[in-house]
Amino acid sequence: MAEQKKMVNDITSMEEDFAKWYTDVVKKAELAEYTSVKGCMVIRPYGYAIWENIQRIMDGMFKATGHENVCMPMFIPESLLNKEKEHVEGFAPEVAWVTHGGSEKLEERLCVRPTSETLFCEHYKAVVHSYRDLPKLYNQWVSVVRWEKTTRPFLRTREFLWQEGHTIHATAEEAQQETVKMLNVYADFCENVLAMPVIKGIKTEKERFAGAEETYTIEALMHDGKALQSGTSHYFGDGFAKAFGIQYMDRNNTLQYPFQTSWGTTTRLIGAIIMTHGDNNGLVLPPKVAPIQVIVVPIAQHKEGVLEKAAELSERLSKICRVKSDITDNSAGWKFAEYEMKGVPLRLEIGPKDIEKNQCVIVRRDSGEKIFVSLDELETKIPELLQAVHDGLYAKALARRSEMTYTAHSFDELFDIAENKPGFIKAMWCGSRECEDALKEKAGVTSRCIPFEQEKVGDTCVCCGKPADKMLYWGKAY
Amino acid sequence: MAEQKKMVNDITSMEEDFAKWYTDVVKKAELAEYTSVKGCMVIRPYGYAIWENIQRIMDGMFKATGHENVCMPMFIPESLLNKEKEHVEGFAPEVAWVTHGGSEKLEERLCVRPTSETLFCEHYKAVVHSYRDLPKLYNQWVSVVRWEKTTRPFLRTREFLWQEGHTIHATAEEAQQETVKMLNVYADFCENVLAMPVIKGIKTEKERFAGAEETYTIEALMHDGKALQSGTSHYFGDGFAKAFGIQYMDRNNTLQYPFQTSWGTTTRLIGAIIMTHGDNNGLVLPPKVAPIQVIVVPIAQHKEGVLEKAAELSERLSKICRVKSDITDNSAGWKFAEYEMKGVPLRLEIGPKDIEKNQCVIVRRDSGEKIFVSLDELETKIPELLQAVHDGLYAKALARRSEMTYTAHSFDELFDIAENKPGFIKAMWCGSRECEDALKEKAGVTSRCIPFEQEKVGDTCVCCGKPADKMLYWGKAY
Repeated sequence: MAEQKKMVNDITSMEEDFAKWYTDVVKKAELAEYTSVKGCMVIRPYGYAIWENIQRIMDGMFKATGHENVCMPMFIPESLLNKEKEHVEGFAPEVAWVTHGGSEKLEERLCVRPTSETLFCEHYKAVVHSYRDLPKLYNQWVSVVRWEKTTRPFLRTREFLWQEGHTIHATAEEAQQETVKMLNVYADFCENVLAMPVIKGIKTEKERFAGAEETYTIEALMHDGKALQSGTSHYFGDGFAKAFGIQYMDRNNTLQYPFQTSWGTTTRLIGAIIMTHGDNNGLVLPPKVAPIQVIVVPIAQHKEGVLEKAAELSERLSKICRVKSDITDNSAGWKFAEYEMKGVPLRLEIGPKDIEKNQCVIVRRDSGEKIFVSLDELETKIPELLQAVHDGLYAKALARRSEMTYTAHSFDELFDIAENKPGFIKAMWCGSRECEDALKEKAGVTSRCIPFEQEKVGDTCVCCGKPADKMLYWGKAY
Repeated sequence: MAEQKKMVNDITSMEEDFAKWYTDVVKKAELAEYTSVKGCMVIRPYGYAIWENIQRIMDGMFKATGHENVCMPMFIPESLLNKEKEHVEGFAPEVAWVTHGGSEKLEERLCVRPTSETLFCEHYKAVVHSYRDLPKLYNQWVSVVRWEKTTRPFLRTREFLWQEGHTIHATAEEAQQETVKMLNVYADFCENVLAMPVIKGIKTEKERFAGAEETYTIEALMHDGKALQSGTSHYFGDGFAKAFGIQYMDRNNTLQYPFQTSWGTTTRLIGAIIMTHGDNNGLVLPPKVAPIQVIVVPIAQHKEGVLEKAAELSERLSKICRVKSDITDNSAGWKFAEYEMKGVPLRLEIGPKDIEKNQCVIVRRDSGEKIFVSLDELETKIPELLQAVHDGLYAKALARRSEMTYTAHSFDELFDIAENKPGFIKAMWCGSRECEDALKEKAGVTSRCIPFEQEKVGDTCVCCGKPADKMLYWGKAY
């Protein structure tokens, strides 16, 4: 057995070093691998299969809400990027520049898209002329590049995969509704597909997307108490339309500027899955995006009929879920550890005694619970158990978030929590940029969002003590 | 009706100007739009929906043959690209170079991948150690960049979407089998999904992929008699493994070099669809990749019950095909022209008289044939008719290719055909590079492939007259 891979006890424990635990999981579960291009990664088959499931389900939600996919170029000419002032200021410092094509120097440099608002604007200008051409509800699945200094697989990479939705509407109201609608789609996806509770809210002006009038966000809390911005949706007003000269003829034959939105989620969601559900045995995958939902492990597989039964069950289950059976000559113990590491939601064990009793043992990855199931009932029990794992993961994450959410009524209290208790901090805010800057500088926390669900936890700003009517979530963030 | 779009008679006819006909179809069927980045295009919703169907079906074929999807970075450090000599010589002249990240000059330039052999090799080196790690059967769906001088939407663009399969095997034989297997998958896809007949064969050394020991190709014939290389599959031997130092321990504990392949198809297939099936009324789409397979057009839609019936039929048909009903206030004539232009395979007309007779009229896009179908039989008739359109398109394309395939026995005969009869030319070849170069220079034709299905059309080389035992397809190509 010298050829067997090492067992999972190679993973650093979360409590010992959370960052190392994270990269251990990424490497050992074979999600991603480093490359010689700093900050860029290879997404390996198991990691990419998770992304494919995310894409398939989310894309279905986009199409069900009337969106169509398109594909824009990956390059943006410098002059095009420069058209919207705030936008270029936000992105120019972190773009990669193409200066040569073959052996020739380009007349104008091209940046590799960090985001595609400017390209969509150029296209809108070409195809939007009349109110009949509106709205356009577009999305694309591509990769973008941002020249980050510090990188970590899935969480922050120089190139990352994402979807970017871009829409254009006749009225401000319609565009605002779209912005909120897509935030709700994201929240729905995180909670009902990834089993990850999120807080929905609005970003402060300081944290807004470059060029946006309003940025909406969903914020999740990771195992270590740090926040992870998991999706954002931006309302642009008619600012981009004015900068790019996009106009349409309305029903009264009057030229009008249209209103725009954009919204995005990224492969960062895979990082969120790892840090929300993972444990010291490795990855724990929410069933709806798990590449393998059920792993069939034959027990005493040298005994007559065991491998055949495993194959038969696997074939049967392939009609209702994503199933794999491992019939390699590795030991059952090794297989248990391997698929725990890989976060497979359910393990189905089948051995000679089980076959005699017409049953099998199913073990839940989230709780370790063992359940004896009659082989006649698999078609009803497996979907129930997958849903139970989903619900269990969601409940556990929600309970953890509740435990790790604190309320601060004064600066000292906030400072103490920020120093000693990782998690979200709820506190009142007067609305001034000065207080926001001060809390970041002195307590090391950033404003996560002004949640839609407001709660009056006081009357005065936690920083300056002046009257305040906005409750904010603060925290340390990835 | 001033707001109505212009009718299809705007398209240049094929016979008048084939190149203009092509770009007219691309623009008017709303497949793609130009951008300010020379040679890069926006793929619009209707064009992208065709690509999504191609992806979904082809990806299923890759997975059914055991392949897994991954995602490599889009950047290749110059030193990595330089590792395999022939490969870099083939690609370096046409890559885009990133020289700056943000405001800093990079220590080493990065090229935007023109193809990813070098990145896969680097990754193989990291993950392949033992015979147990082989084979790796990978694919990725990404875009690549080649700094082409002359560009045309879908056919040749500086950035294009593609899939690139990359595999690594323990033995040369297994890698060679993979190369041919994937060529067969491509041919199967072109014929059974795109209704486009292809010739399978081997490229001459001159036309081989940079760094390959053997390149296999499928070649299709377009409406204007030009050939289109529609997919290629490369066998690399152990050349890349040696250049990159990839080795594995075999069963006898001996270090060995593994053997590699790669294979790719691109958005060029959309260009192939346009130029194989299109006509002077616009696009004609093979049913299996058509975004809309059936368009329901209500006739006399102001009459009672017509719109309701159209909606009911559309709802019913949505269970068995991709259907849309057009209930806008545009005239029926305008709608006919619009969906003809867009290449929708079947048009279903439903008016008051049809409703009375419990029937509808179905019109085939490929032949214009009108068929009366009882509303009770739609669920059996529609799939039959879609298959009939597929078969009709295939038969028509095959017949055209037969008509446009000529045989040349001497240089003069070949020269005459090349000058006057667009199409494939079958001719014997002695195997020398000199003759290949001479035919290109003097007759303007390139060798398309040495077909698997050989046919002895003579004994001597069409160029030099020396003994020859290989029959080649020659032609002018996109």
